[in-house]
Amino acid sequence: MSTWITGIAASSGIAIGKAYRLVEPDLSFQKTTVEDSEKEISRFRDSLRIAKSQLEAIRDHAREALGPDKAEIFEAHLLILNDPEIVAPIEDKIKNEKMNAEAALQETTDMFIGIFEQMDNEYMRERAADIRDVRKRVLAGLLNVTIPNPSMISEEVIIVAEDLTPSDTAQLNRKFVKGFTTDIGGRTSHSAIMARSLEIPAVVGTKTATKDIQNGDFLILDGLSGEVHINPTEELIEEYKKKQADYEAQLAEWAKLVNEPSISKDGVQVELVANIGTPKDVEGALHNGAEGVGLFRTEFLYMGRDELPSEEDQFAAYKAVLEGMEGRPVVVRTLDIGGDKKLSYLPLPEEMNPFLGHRAIRLCLDRTDIFRTQLRALLRASVYGKLKVMFPMIATLNEFREAKKLFLEEKDNLAKEGIPTADHIELGIMVEIPSTAVLADQFAKEVDFFSIGTNDLIQYTMAADRMNEQVSYLYQPYNPSILRLVKMVIDASHKEGKWTGMCGEMAGDETAVPLLLGLGLDEFSMSATSILKARSLIRKLSKAEMEKLAQEALQKSTVEEVIELVKNAVK
Amino acid sequence: MSTWITGIAASSGIAIGKAYRLVEPDLSFQKTTVEDSEKEISRFRDSLRIAKSQLEAIRDHAREALGPDKAEIFEAHLLILNDPEIVAPIEDKIKNEKMNAEAALQETTDMFIGIFEQMDNEYMRERAADIRDVRKRVLAGLLNVTIPNPSMISEEVIIVAEDLTPSDTAQLNRKFVKGFTTDIGGRTSHSAIMARSLEIPAVVGTKTATKDIQNGDFLILDGLSGEVHINPTEELIEEYKKKQADYEAQLAEWAKLVNEPSISKDGVQVELVANIGTPKDVEGALHNGAEGVGLFRTEFLYMGRDELPSEEDQFAAYKAVLEGMEGRPVVVRTLDIGGDKKLSYLPLPEEMNPFLGHRAIRLCLDRTDIFRTQLRALLRASVYGKLKVMFPMIATLNEFREAKKLFLEEKDNLAKEGIPTADHIELGIMVEIPSTAVLADQFAKEVDFFSIGTNDLIQYTMAADRMNEQVSYLYQPYNPSILRLVKMVIDASHKEGKWTGMCGEMAGDETAVPLLLGLGLDEFSMSATSILKARSLIRKLSKAEMEKLAQEALQKSTVEEVIELVKNAVK
Repeated sequence: MSTWITGIAASSGIAIGKAYRLVEPDLSFQKTTVEDSEKEISRFRDSLRIAKSQLEAIRDHAREALGPDKAEIFEAHLLILNDPEIVAPIEDKIKNEKMNAEAALQETTDMFIGIFEQMDNEYMRERAADIRDVRKRVLAGLLNVTIPNPSMISEEVIIVAEDLTPSDTAQLNRKFVKGFTTDIGGRTSHSAIMARSLEIPAVVGTKTATKDIQNGDFLILDGLSGEVHINPTEELIEEYKKKQADYEAQLAEWAKLVNEPSISKDGVQVELVANIGTPKDVEGALHNGAEGVGLFRTEFLYMGRDELPSEEDQFAAYKAVLEGMEGRPVVVRTLDIGGDKKLSYLPLPEEMNPFLGHRAIRLCLDRTDIFRTQLRALLRASVYGKLKVMFPMIATLNEFREAKKLFLEEKDNLAKEGIPTADHIELGIMVEIPSTAVLADQFAKEVDFFSIGTNDLIQYTMAADRMNEQVSYLYQPYNPSILRLVKMVIDASHKEGKWTGMCGEMAGDETAVPLLLGLGLDEFSMSATSILKARSLIRKLSKAEMEKLAQEALQKSTVEEVIELVKNAVK
Repeated sequence: MSTWITGIAASSGIAIGKAYRLVEPDLSFQKTTVEDSEKEISRFRDSLRIAKSQLEAIRDHAREALGPDKAEIFEAHLLILNDPEIVAPIEDKIKNEKMNAEAALQETTDMFIGIFEQMDNEYMRERAADIRDVRKRVLAGLLNVTIPNPSMISEEVIIVAEDLTPSDTAQLNRKFVKGFTTDIGGRTSHSAIMARSLEIPAVVGTKTATKDIQNGDFLILDGLSGEVHINPTEELIEEYKKKQADYEAQLAEWAKLVNEPSISKDGVQVELVANIGTPKDVEGALHNGAEGVGLFRTEFLYMGRDELPSEEDQFAAYKAVLEGMEGRPVVVRTLDIGGDKKLSYLPLPEEMNPFLGHRAIRLCLDRTDIFRTQLRALLRASVYGKLKVMFPMIATLNEFREAKKLFLEEKDNLAKEGIPTADHIELGIMVEIPSTAVLADQFAKEVDFFSIGTNDLIQYTMAADRMNEQVSYLYQPYNPSILRLVKMVIDASHKEGKWTGMCGEMAGDETAVPLLLGLGLDEFSMSATSILKARSLIRKLSKAEMEKLAQEALQKSTVEEVIELVKNAVK
């Protein structure tokens, strides 16, 4: 049966292939009494055999793909399956207590897990985790459900999941994963950002993908329109293969612009730069023609570890990015933690409204020990490229003055220690709080540049949590009030001979680019994969015409009118 | 020993008197074995006698003050104290199990409460609640701690509490309560608003009042400076008695302005109106010279009950206020629920950032059943006075258009039913979201008036939760960005021949009034008790001079500079 669902087009492109569900299986069961315990024991042994052959296959695959070390864990799992001290008590329970195999497995392994976990020995506690893993696999066999194993994917698939966590995506084999679709999330959710960074098409927030799509269903995933077709007709597949070819031709066309300037039809040049999260992203940025980095998020350095990163660790990362970008400008944002971003080793008080709470620069000016370490690492790295530093969540001029003071103090300290730093490092601020946009003329006298962070600026200006689906209709990038604030910031910077960038999702959006060009934005920072498309668009637009368009948009009263206006004017 | 603490001056005036702690006592205890069970039984009987005499006194007082109906509940409590079916098993436990009286009381009453609560009978379930109440009193006797009983206060006192809930304040006898001080809360917390409405001095947010002050301590509470002196010297008491007399003379002076116009030295008239929460507040508004009501919060109608208020209940309340205000304008704000304001009978999903969530007009446009009932009640009441209606939390023009459409539909429906409504009812909006302030020129073409809600406008503009102490330094009413937004709104309204009011806490503030007069604000809505003081101030100010002052303030870069500017200019 052919059918289709829709979601949010989160990453461009078209994928065609078989579905692979990355969904935790339901392993719940009832404890029952069985009549024929011989038959139940044989059912249990069948599930052991299945688990064994699965584990052997995974072990062999891991040995080949990742080397013998990585395969060892599966050897340990196989040993457990063969351990009579574990298997025998389970069969006894089935026989003597007439218990069903699921319950006998659960109760016996619970006992072993309990014993191992209480031991004061790291090795034995790991055995408890192994038993849990093996039990899960045997239980799945008994219940006749499948445990997904993304590392075993060996054919081209489209991933179907409720949502994708960073650890899920880390396990995916980029060679075989051709696209993905999720139940939840929006354009700015982790899975969407990840898809754009991996350069694979994605449709997120479908609400029902995991309900409507079974393993092996044939899918067409359209990351341009947000449609997912399930078991489509041959005719439709042919149609989409053509669309896919057209899109790839388009990509090839855009690829020719990789070393071209970002210049409008009437000769006005702007800068198209990349948002990156780790030094690994530098390659993709250059490959996609980035003229620099407009936002280097430094949170990755602080995440997935047990303690604060050392000055040395940070220095190495900043140096790697600066060297990798080969003299192109790199704007580093200082730590933006708090709000929805938490660190296990830095416990922060629970807040009723974390988005309006003690985060980013507010936290850094309070925890100057953490902040100074980052500033020192940045200053030391500054000699390896063209570093610019910006502070997030600035709401008042005093906050900027205080942050700048700490920066200059650390520069002085380094000088005294004889450690070289770059002569002039531009210091800017993120404009993501309405007060700062409204007062941009005052800020422009003291900062070197602005970078507008639209994700937060929109949510504060509209007073709507962008993660809250009930008010997501108010997350309106093209609301005339947002455009007016953007204009205030750009005009204020130009009046003082400074420049303004934008590093929110909006900067790469095709409806936004004409307006932003017209408003006079100097630097557009976006996912690397959006750069060539944006360059192609800018090269077709006249700055003078876009200025008129932007003026008109500023006088509209609703977001709908603005979108209509741009649609009619461009293409 | 004389000492003092400080907090936030939340309601003006000076109170001098004895402390009365309104603090839940600690009733925790250990279960122990007693040697001498006879002695323990006698200790238990003593506590019963004490509880009995307390309850008799409360009953007699309630009978006298509130009538025989209200005293009945205490008769029921006395019956429990005398019930051998409850008392005997407790004494048995002490005797046979050598249990201490506290534990015997707890375990025995737990059993009865359990039985009663499970009965399918409202009457019996209420008996369970009675047993709980009585047990608490007997336990307090055993542990030698006092249960505060605010309804029994019969001398002048100053209340000391962690915080005051609406139900606490409802129980207070206004005749004897001369002031209060709390550990937590700020100028906009419930207890602070309540103090201003009761016209008694208050100091909130002292952090340590309940720790530092004992029952019966002699206090001086200075609601002007935020100081609370504990057991002061005679000399200090004399000094404060003089201050108190001066303040009262000042009040008497202001009282002469009750029927005078709110007019500046150079002849420009503005409107000074009151914020009210219930029809009961009308008296205080008129007594303090309010020229109308600038904000009638309608939430009280929805709170402290088990179901939505009927159209009839609402109609009666709106009619009472409109008639009470005798033809003066009354601006009613439609339901602002959600965020931190919850209703037990209207369960709403938990939100990660409730202040950026599905509240006020967002909820009403979703639950049009609730909204239409309120609009009908308002329309029906409109013939009894000069009604104006405003919608809270408007972020886009489409929201206003939709709300207005529903209003006009209900007006039509009433006309078809032959029910009269006022001919022209002004429809306005609260400006408390930055997008609306920035786009005020577009809104001004369609709304009849604006009312700036500063509490929310400041917290969104600065992206700082005003309830979160860690970021409360960012709640800056005089930040130049806030003043600029206020100016945008006022200018936009005047350009279209409309008017702008302000109904946040800022409107009554003595630093704000000169600036707001200068910015051209038409209507200042505040706690009734601030009106005469504000009128006195406005009559001393020149509008032309304040215009210059406001212009200067708009060009300042920090809140500190603005405050300095106003301080130097006024007085």
